[in-house]
Amino acid sequence: MPDARPAADVLALPDVAAIRAAAARIAPHVHRTPLFTCRSLDAEVGAQLLFKAENLQRTGAFKARGATNAVFSLSEAEARRGVVTHSSGNHGAALAYAAARRGIPAVVVMPDNAARVKLDNVRRHGATIRLCAPTPAAREAACAEVERETGAVLVHPFDDPRVIAGQGTAALELLEQASDLDVVVAPVGGGGLLSGTAIAVRSSSPATKVYGAEPANADDAARSFRSGRVEPLPCAVTLADGLRTTLSLRTLGAIRGGVEAVGVASEAAIVRAMRMFWERTKLLIEPSSAVPLACLLEGTLEVRGARVGIILSGGNVDLDRLPWQS
Amino acid sequence: MPDARPAADVLALPDVAAIRAAAARIAPHVHRTPLFTCRSLDAEVGAQLLFKAENLQRTGAFKARGATNAVFSLSEAEARRGVVTHSSGNHGAALAYAAARRGIPAVVVMPDNAARVKLDNVRRHGATIRLCAPTPAAREAACAEVERETGAVLVHPFDDPRVIAGQGTAALELLEQASDLDVVVAPVGGGGLLSGTAIAVRSSSPATKVYGAEPANADDAARSFRSGRVEPLPCAVTLADGLRTTLSLRTLGAIRGGVEAVGVASEAAIVRAMRMFWERTKLLIEPSSAVPLACLLEGTLEVRGARVGIILSGGNVDLDRLPWQS
Repeated sequence: MPDARPAADVLALPDVAAIRAAAARIAPHVHRTPLFTCRSLDAEVGAQLLFKAENLQRTGAFKARGATNAVFSLSEAEARRGVVTHSSGNHGAALAYAAARRGIPAVVVMPDNAARVKLDNVRRHGATIRLCAPTPAAREAACAEVERETGAVLVHPFDDPRVIAGQGTAALELLEQASDLDVVVAPVGGGGLLSGTAIAVRSSSPATKVYGAEPANADDAARSFRSGRVEPLPCAVTLADGLRTTLSLRTLGAIRGGVEAVGVASEAAIVRAMRMFWERTKLLIEPSSAVPLACLLEGTLEVRGARVGIILSGGNVDLDRLPWQS
Repeated sequence: MPDARPAADVLALPDVAAIRAAAARIAPHVHRTPLFTCRSLDAEVGAQLLFKAENLQRTGAFKARGATNAVFSLSEAEARRGVVTHSSGNHGAALAYAAARRGIPAVVVMPDNAARVKLDNVRRHGATIRLCAPTPAAREAACAEVERETGAVLVHPFDDPRVIAGQGTAALELLEQASDLDVVVAPVGGGGLLSGTAIAVRSSSPATKVYGAEPANADDAARSFRSGRVEPLPCAVTLADGLRTTLSLRTLGAIRGGVEAVGVASEAAIVRAMRMFWERTKLLIEPSSAVPLACLLEGTLEVRGARVGIILSGGNVDLDRLPWQS
């Protein structure tokens, strides 16, 4: 997506030093989440799986890392004017949380058809919500209006080096907690988490491969990975609503540079993986978090015999209706 | 319940040394489960809560501790003949698991109307299931028959000093993991967990109070605690099906000797506590595990300002239908 910034900025990525700096910056504000293992899931997949539980992260998702790094990277003058973003999901709550920790205002632009549970989650963390029509144009116009009115800094959900550096801290921790990983798998939507993961793993553990995982019904990242262009989303719907986003030029660059493969999972496999994970581990994960396991169960990512770190992206689920309930 | 054994045996309880011995005996076979904290739940209750996650225990419940201690306490000659129990729930799976670990046969007597998920859980751990009519008389007759036929040793779900000692190891660990607890709360059904908890806490941390928690619709333990007799179950139904059991003389003795209070929770509070716990902590717990938190939310156990350890008894939930879904 070309914009008014110079090309170099559009492609700029954090290096591992920036990810380490982010880790130090956000440490007082986020959890060092634990790893979980489960022998019966290992037996299902035929591999040794280590799950990084970002579902237990503050605000219920890894997004707290990137948002906190962005907010605490602002100068005093910038911070005073507050932050703004558009998000119908976890990034909005994460930015609200981070802004509250720094004591600055946050505005989250949300579509006027957003689920009540998502509105509540953003409001609970103290942000102001600005509703707009559920289109990209309306969303960008509303963000620009807030920027103009208040001077607030836009913190994009993924297309921002500070956000990518923050997301990369999850993989950095994972590598500290578990040595000798053959593979790390992360879900991919806009690509912030996968980009940060690729950069962290390439530098800290070059022998470890990085895989992305996404729904077959939103396989734009797999196609972009192959074509080298930012491919559009297909029209199909997916349960893993957190992954219904295209890459940016920036995240595509990071992923093409540091990721070995992007696997896709059917909707049926995502539901099966999510339920199996709940039953076997007693940990709640949202559909997007089940996509890597779904790829392993369907065999679209091959990890047999390997030692595999999997980043569980989040645990914010609508408990009124579960995907396996008709 | 008088039986053929001498009175002393009917009342016999493990001491803390027996609980420590149990901890060493079962260590190779059970998890040392982690503690979890949650600031937003602390704020709801006005206390500092530390949750001992026995929902992450092998077989999905603390029951693995008692069953494993009983099975590994048997002599070689006893063990060879196998074990038998009656259980429609977690104890059956736990005994199956423990027997499989020792490589001996297990028979679990279950009512012929038991849910498929419970039958599967017992079968998955390798026990033989013997179905009987869903009455106490049929259950005891079936158990006695297995004992006669095979010489198998009966491992009662709670009325057994070895089982109580095993269950007490959860509290022992909790006290090692969290110092200076003002209160420990455990759910109470037959009273095995609460008895073991009371004995462990009284000896290891005398300043810490022990509370029991049960559904108001199955308040026999609260009434027994007051009257000093084993009171019968009321007829009402409760979601917390794991707690629909009366005490024995043995567990009543332990509870009267070492427990400060038994609180009761309404069904509405149990549902609310369970859902709130899932949403805030992303940990799956079964309804019985939510009863202590429900008592704190309803104020039937007063812990304001205290540092409170809570034993989460298990996480085996039927995911096809959740209690808050009509």
